[in-house]
Amino acid sequence: MENCTLLLLKPRERIIGTARDLFRKHGIRGIGVDAIAEAAGTNKMTLYRHFGSKDELVAECLRDVAREVEEMWAEVETAHPGDTLAQLRAWLRCAAEYKTQDDCRGCDMANAAVELTETDHPARQVIEDFKRKQRDRIVRLAREGGIDDAELLADTVFLLLEGARVSRQSVGAEGPAAHFMTSAEAVIASFLLKSRGRVTVAKRKTKAPASVR
Amino acid sequence: MENCTLLLLKPRERIIGTARDLFRKHGIRGIGVDAIAEAAGTNKMTLYRHFGSKDELVAECLRDVAREVEEMWAEVETAHPGDTLAQLRAWLRCAAEYKTQDDCRGCDMANAAVELTETDHPARQVIEDFKRKQRDRIVRLAREGGIDDAELLADTVFLLLEGARVSRQSVGAEGPAAHFMTSAEAVIASFLLKSRGRVTVAKRKTKAPASVR
Repeated sequence: MENCTLLLLKPRERIIGTARDLFRKHGIRGIGVDAIAEAAGTNKMTLYRHFGSKDELVAECLRDVAREVEEMWAEVETAHPGDTLAQLRAWLRCAAEYKTQDDCRGCDMANAAVELTETDHPARQVIEDFKRKQRDRIVRLAREGGIDDAELLADTVFLLLEGARVSRQSVGAEGPAAHFMTSAEAVIASFLLKSRGRVTVAKRKTKAPASVR
Repeated sequence: MENCTLLLLKPRERIIGTARDLFRKHGIRGIGVDAIAEAAGTNKMTLYRHFGSKDELVAECLRDVAREVEEMWAEVETAHPGDTLAQLRAWLRCAAEYKTQDDCRGCDMANAAVELTETDHPARQVIEDFKRKQRDRIVRLAREGGIDDAELLADTVFLLLEGARVSRQSVGAEGPAAHFMTSAEAVIASFLLKSRGRVTVAKRKTKAPASVR
């Protein structure tokens, strides 16, 4: 966040915006509340008054990410009214590129899940709810778009997207993540072909046909 | 590591084994060198004598992971001599399940890439070399197995695998990661069908045919 923008915000919003930036840059465990409060132009007492603890601040930052992603979905629906597969493709493109222009830090939700090893951390429920909601939405879009095995398609593109966002952090944007949309398009196309009865690719929970094994 | 096994090892091996366990359990930043040295039945001075710094210990732990994965590849080759696609499938199955029986912590390499935000950390080169090597091997196996677009297949299954191992950490093993092998099998089958000229699914770097968009 730039300082000129920061000054226009209330302390609570300033702290969330600053914390999100710093968590992303240094990792959640790589930055303390003192540094966050100072960078947000406030103090630790104000931070604790608003959030109670660093853990709750982390959870609130992730709720803020979830709100942004909801806005992204709304934009995608507006851009492609009635065409659910176009919405799905547009969303995959947005999600793969979201916040990756400036760094190679991938998905804030998945990164938090990696960093926060405590099973009772308040952020874990936020992450789980968010990820399930994304997957359920992809299932619905795929189903309405005429994909028979919408659940398997959703799992496949969901894993591809998670993979693309984590892979950037290991080998950079020029690695396998560079071909994420080509991979996703090929997967969607093969599921569509299968649904239209033109070809049998593989059935769920059964082995692939002997000819292709 | 169990204590009875630990006692049979030399200090260097004990430290690496203990550090790998503790990094996995608490995150790399969630555990200090004092705690590692104590759990390994040694002291900080010995740890620094062997590794120089915590950063170098992290890098060495990841080299140890890479050596284990090499052994996994060797086993897979022995189990399926000459059948590169069977090797690929067996490896994907092993890699997806590797170390996930006991926890939901995914890939040590990818997790380290998420945690270690410093671009000059000595572990980054280990991670990058490892990930590139895995991908190159998948390309070769796919090509020898008769897949035309072996590079896109490799990127696709690589992203699926990365996604499966990170997704477990967000939503657990019952989420999309549960269907990783079904997804991977469907992808391999569709690339095989395409390579055998029976169907056009999608061409690389071109748009999908109008009929399936």
